[in-house]
Amino acid sequence: MYEMTFFCPTELICGFGILDRLKELVEPYGNRGLFVMDPFFQGGETESRILKLLEGKQMQTYAQVIPNPRDTDINKGASLCQEGIDFIIALGGGSSIDTAKAINVVFSNGGSAWDYVKKADRPMREITKPLVPLIAIPTTAGTGAEATRYSVVTNEAQHGKGTIKTDLIFPTKALVDAELMMSMPRKTTALTAIDAFAHAFEAYIGSKANAFSEMFSLQAMKLFARSAKRVCEDGSDREARCDMAMCSALGGLSITHSATTLPHGIGQALSGVTDAPHGGSIAVCMANVVRWTLPECEERFAEVACLLEPGLKDKPLREQAEALPDILNEFFYDMVGESVTMASYGLKEEQVEAVADMALTNYYGDVSRHPKVASREELIGIIRSCL
Amino acid sequence: MYEMTFFCPTELICGFGILDRLKELVEPYGNRGLFVMDPFFQGGETESRILKLLEGKQMQTYAQVIPNPRDTDINKGASLCQEGIDFIIALGGGSSIDTAKAINVVFSNGGSAWDYVKKADRPMREITKPLVPLIAIPTTAGTGAEATRYSVVTNEAQHGKGTIKTDLIFPTKALVDAELMMSMPRKTTALTAIDAFAHAFEAYIGSKANAFSEMFSLQAMKLFARSAKRVCEDGSDREARCDMAMCSALGGLSITHSATTLPHGIGQALSGVTDAPHGGSIAVCMANVVRWTLPECEERFAEVACLLEPGLKDKPLREQAEALPDILNEFFYDMVGESVTMASYGLKEEQVEAVADMALTNYYGDVSRHPKVASREELIGIIRSCL
Repeated sequence: MYEMTFFCPTELICGFGILDRLKELVEPYGNRGLFVMDPFFQGGETESRILKLLEGKQMQTYAQVIPNPRDTDINKGASLCQEGIDFIIALGGGSSIDTAKAINVVFSNGGSAWDYVKKADRPMREITKPLVPLIAIPTTAGTGAEATRYSVVTNEAQHGKGTIKTDLIFPTKALVDAELMMSMPRKTTALTAIDAFAHAFEAYIGSKANAFSEMFSLQAMKLFARSAKRVCEDGSDREARCDMAMCSALGGLSITHSATTLPHGIGQALSGVTDAPHGGSIAVCMANVVRWTLPECEERFAEVACLLEPGLKDKPLREQAEALPDILNEFFYDMVGESVTMASYGLKEEQVEAVADMALTNYYGDVSRHPKVASREELIGIIRSCL
Repeated sequence: MYEMTFFCPTELICGFGILDRLKELVEPYGNRGLFVMDPFFQGGETESRILKLLEGKQMQTYAQVIPNPRDTDINKGASLCQEGIDFIIALGGGSSIDTAKAINVVFSNGGSAWDYVKKADRPMREITKPLVPLIAIPTTAGTGAEATRYSVVTNEAQHGKGTIKTDLIFPTKALVDAELMMSMPRKTTALTAIDAFAHAFEAYIGSKANAFSEMFSLQAMKLFARSAKRVCEDGSDREARCDMAMCSALGGLSITHSATTLPHGIGQALSGVTDAPHGGSIAVCMANVVRWTLPECEERFAEVACLLEPGLKDKPLREQAEALPDILNEFFYDMVGESVTMASYGLKEEQVEAVADMALTNYYGDVSRHPKVASREELIGIIRSCL
């Protein structure tokens, strides 16, 4: 028996200057809404535009979204909804959307956000009551949280991170408006774009790749190849912003139908040990992960190399694949505008083993789905090579 | 403003030998079901396997599905459900799935199936009451009805065809089991596969193509290129059957996100005037439509030509594009095992104008979305060239 599934119930509406559609999307949903928002937007033009579009609705605002949302904050957000809400709007990057997804679960089904995270020692608490419609409005082009069944939750008391993973938390709709991303500064633009690419790329090479995930991955990587450098060099390039917004949503669809692999495993562990930003933590290890993986996965690496550097098309397969690590490093350097390494994110030689161990425990799924499964010694070697 | 939407709420479960999953899929849906089925399966092994999987449920069967489902038959099917049903199972090709979709609307919302077809002179009747979950089990690899918002309805009294088109009739789930397609005879295999390819190809070249539809189209055409001839030559080739089952679902997703163009416009008109089967009606005109369209759409035609005939990759673009009509004809000939023409489907020279006029009235959407819009004279010329 062989089986693969296509599923994303979210309606993704992508474009430029489409925020006004929010009014008609929210219209059928009843009167009481919760507006979950990155504090960055508080008091700004986008907030007031959205509140104007929601005129006539009774809105409450939760603007205490932080990077790496904590269960305690999510529970606080849910407690704002005790008198009942009919819908949720999420505005911001992945943290805002993840927070809104988790608030939706806790508000409707009680308990704490952490109860819904599946852990090795206990199952996730069951979701039995229906959630309310959630409209996600991403303002970065990276996480793809608008098109996933995931919400990452941090539990400070237990020094842990976990993921609520259920088909029930897909946003109902996503308004992916590249206009809202125009003001992202270069570094954020670059690092979130690298995250989007990593979703597509890792889903493409991973053991869970299938005919559905592959097409999302390929389309995302094509858009990245066409527009990632352009959008970093000129943030006012509308077409490039649209491409990267699509690339991000398609990256989300890629991991929804496959999953991330070793670069995310190492990157997330690095962010656990240092304060490296998510996209940066992946940028610093991806090329070396590819180099270590070769000659495994040669054909796919060659294909990606040719997507990023079409001049390679006439070269032999091996040469194409072997060119990929340098191509990635050059691409990321051109995007970020400077060289980043694990050391530049503060990692010390004596912390290398801790990163390896965290990858092997907290992110073993990523390690195991990679086309070549790394031992502890090999992981240490890869991480050391990225210092 | 620019905008494009991704939306298919159907969970597509694709594989080989996965029919048994039906039991667990239906489980949460309540007790009373309607089983809509192509009469071809009545009394056969697949019917009894399914009824066994549904043991414990109160099932009614509607097996009067006919090609080109009529409103009167759909209404009859809906009248079986007067005491209420909790779910619908559809087994068969596009006609069975379309019938089940339309029964779902009529049973839940009253009236006749024809009321829900949008016509030039009146809007479609509004669907206000919720439908029940519908599980589609396709047994051909062609229409992709398992992944579309369409149900085509024929009204004999008015000598017309129309489409119920609403997001509400996407199947809830589709069990796409290539094992059920193993016994399809060669001609059906070939003609349904050509229909699936046509969905992907026409959606790719049409004016509604976008970054979402394109990736569905490309993936479907890749699978077609790899397996369409193989599955026709050897119907017992499991891998090829799986590819074509996926190709069909992806073709459905292609037209869900874009739409068909001139080959479907002419083909459907031909089937209206003669009894040409749907896939055959497209096979007889596609190459000549491409030939007439050139040099418009050269780049996309070249891309498809290279997918179907990788040996062309080093040729100049124009040469690649100009090779496409012959490649299509050879492909279709190899698949069907014989040459088909409009004349072989019974079209007479004196009926050519009738086909052109029907394309221009009933299928003008297809004509207008084509990369080169045909006048009546040009249509007549294309159709005559296919005799």
